[in-house]
Amino acid sequence: MSFDRLIEKIIELKNPTVVGLDPKLEYVPKYIQRRYLEKDGLTLKAAAKAIYDFNQAIIDEIHDVVPAIKPQAAYYEMYGHYGIRTLEKTIRYAKLNGMFVITDGKRNDIGATMEAYTNAHLGTTLVGENSMEAFGADALTVNGYLGTDGIEPLLKVCRKQDKGIYVLVKTSNKSSGELQDLKLEDGTPIYAKMGDLCEKWGADTIGKYGYSAVGAVVGATYPEMLAELRQRLPHTMFLVPGYGAQGGGAEGLKGGFDANGLGAIVNSSRAVMCAYKKEECDERDFAKAARREVIRMRDDITQYINLK
Amino acid sequence: MSFDRLIEKIIELKNPTVVGLDPKLEYVPKYIQRRYLEKDGLTLKAAAKAIYDFNQAIIDEIHDVVPAIKPQAAYYEMYGHYGIRTLEKTIRYAKLNGMFVITDGKRNDIGATMEAYTNAHLGTTLVGENSMEAFGADALTVNGYLGTDGIEPLLKVCRKQDKGIYVLVKTSNKSSGELQDLKLEDGTPIYAKMGDLCEKWGADTIGKYGYSAVGAVVGATYPEMLAELRQRLPHTMFLVPGYGAQGGGAEGLKGGFDANGLGAIVNSSRAVMCAYKKEECDERDFAKAARREVIRMRDDITQYINLK
Repeated sequence: MSFDRLIEKIIELKNPTVVGLDPKLEYVPKYIQRRYLEKDGLTLKAAAKAIYDFNQAIIDEIHDVVPAIKPQAAYYEMYGHYGIRTLEKTIRYAKLNGMFVITDGKRNDIGATMEAYTNAHLGTTLVGENSMEAFGADALTVNGYLGTDGIEPLLKVCRKQDKGIYVLVKTSNKSSGELQDLKLEDGTPIYAKMGDLCEKWGADTIGKYGYSAVGAVVGATYPEMLAELRQRLPHTMFLVPGYGAQGGGAEGLKGGFDANGLGAIVNSSRAVMCAYKKEECDERDFAKAARREVIRMRDDITQYINLK
Repeated sequence: MSFDRLIEKIIELKNPTVVGLDPKLEYVPKYIQRRYLEKDGLTLKAAAKAIYDFNQAIIDEIHDVVPAIKPQAAYYEMYGHYGIRTLEKTIRYAKLNGMFVITDGKRNDIGATMEAYTNAHLGTTLVGENSMEAFGADALTVNGYLGTDGIEPLLKVCRKQDKGIYVLVKTSNKSSGELQDLKLEDGTPIYAKMGDLCEKWGADTIGKYGYSAVGAVVGATYPEMLAELRQRLPHTMFLVPGYGAQGGGAEGLKGGFDANGLGAIVNSSRAVMCAYKKEECDERDFAKAARREVIRMRDDITQYINLK
């Protein structure tokens, strides 16, 4: 219940960032690709195995700097059940390395189906009397368009098993305003209304740092809305995509944090995974380049906030 | 491009329904469960294998009556990568049997990530020069909260590879109104605005029956909204959940169809999968019971519409 575990890890490492592991095969250095493509051919299986080696090496290098990873489900589904196996193994490996794992799946459904998603990603699946984790992440991103029926099954597991969710509120993309910025009859924009629902859904799960188990996704690309929502949603922790590659600068993130430098975790994906390409270093140095980038990102962001 | 292929199948079988394959292990007859649980133990692997046998037997019995199946991704993810393999095989088996496959995944994201979901579920994944289908469904349900950036990558594949999407507009659950029914400043409810976006997104993909490649999910549980949206969205085909188990009656569906009995496809999941439980027949007769139920459903629904 609540995001206390994640927040403690953020305080311990003095680093409110998360690395998105969204690995396309083309991000994986050629020498790793060759290991498997030569053995298994140009197959989904070979690609999925290469991606696991890539993820593992990055986790080895960053786990003492960064509190969390955020694997994006889409990039694993692309490789079919082989990719999903890599997702399972990546989550397990990150947890073994003491990292907090947020599966970015933006899942949404109702009733028994939402229970199935909850069991899959955060809870356990029952086979006979045997209860097993299918993925076993610590948190999941979700889409709240279906209302409380889509959130309640998640909350049950958040309360019992110390897990959390991030609901899409104001996303980082250009067209996010098409629906999210429209104003309701009373003048409230839809994204703010969705934010209010997050406060309501999380109300009975507030932890010792003041944040509930129900967080919100709010893009770095709209700094004024990030600051506005920080004020409006005092118990809702933010997951902030859009830093770096999508154009959100570090100073603009400031408004997403509270006076203690808490209340937000900022994601970077491609800039970390492909740091070796940007640096133009030897591809065998990709994991060290990722480490250099996460340290740079940490220092870039923490200079503007008051995290002790 | 467009839903012509599905509509032709509906006309051929005179049946505008789809069977949701959302198989919990407890729906699978004990004699099938035993086949695998004795061999592989109480494992996710055994459960996933049992579910595949169950799906296969149902497809064998219904494919000459029902035009389409709709596997719900959540129930496969519950069983980890073993479950996902069962999903892949179920899709392939249904297609081999001439059925149209709608993966119910309610996926949503932006840019490169939405491209990855699109490639995974509808398109192909590239490994080196080798392009492969990971899942290869004909259509996918999606959530439009992120706007055009989340839909455009899907449309590219819909146009090129004759695929379709269903966007959540007005869902069948009790709390769907919490957000979806709220009125915008000009008095339009959010669900109608989302419907208008579907018309816009689909505008250049309209097929010979007048429907585009962008459909909408509209619940059977709100018959007046179903009828209102049929008028408002003349080029948007509806996927209608909530018939039967969730309380939507056949007569209330009428308003979702056009004058030719087209424009909608009605889903039933549990009532078909668990027909043998309701009938209290021998569990070995589960697939025949499913067949009896899909015929009953077809006749129940077509009595109110004008499908020639």
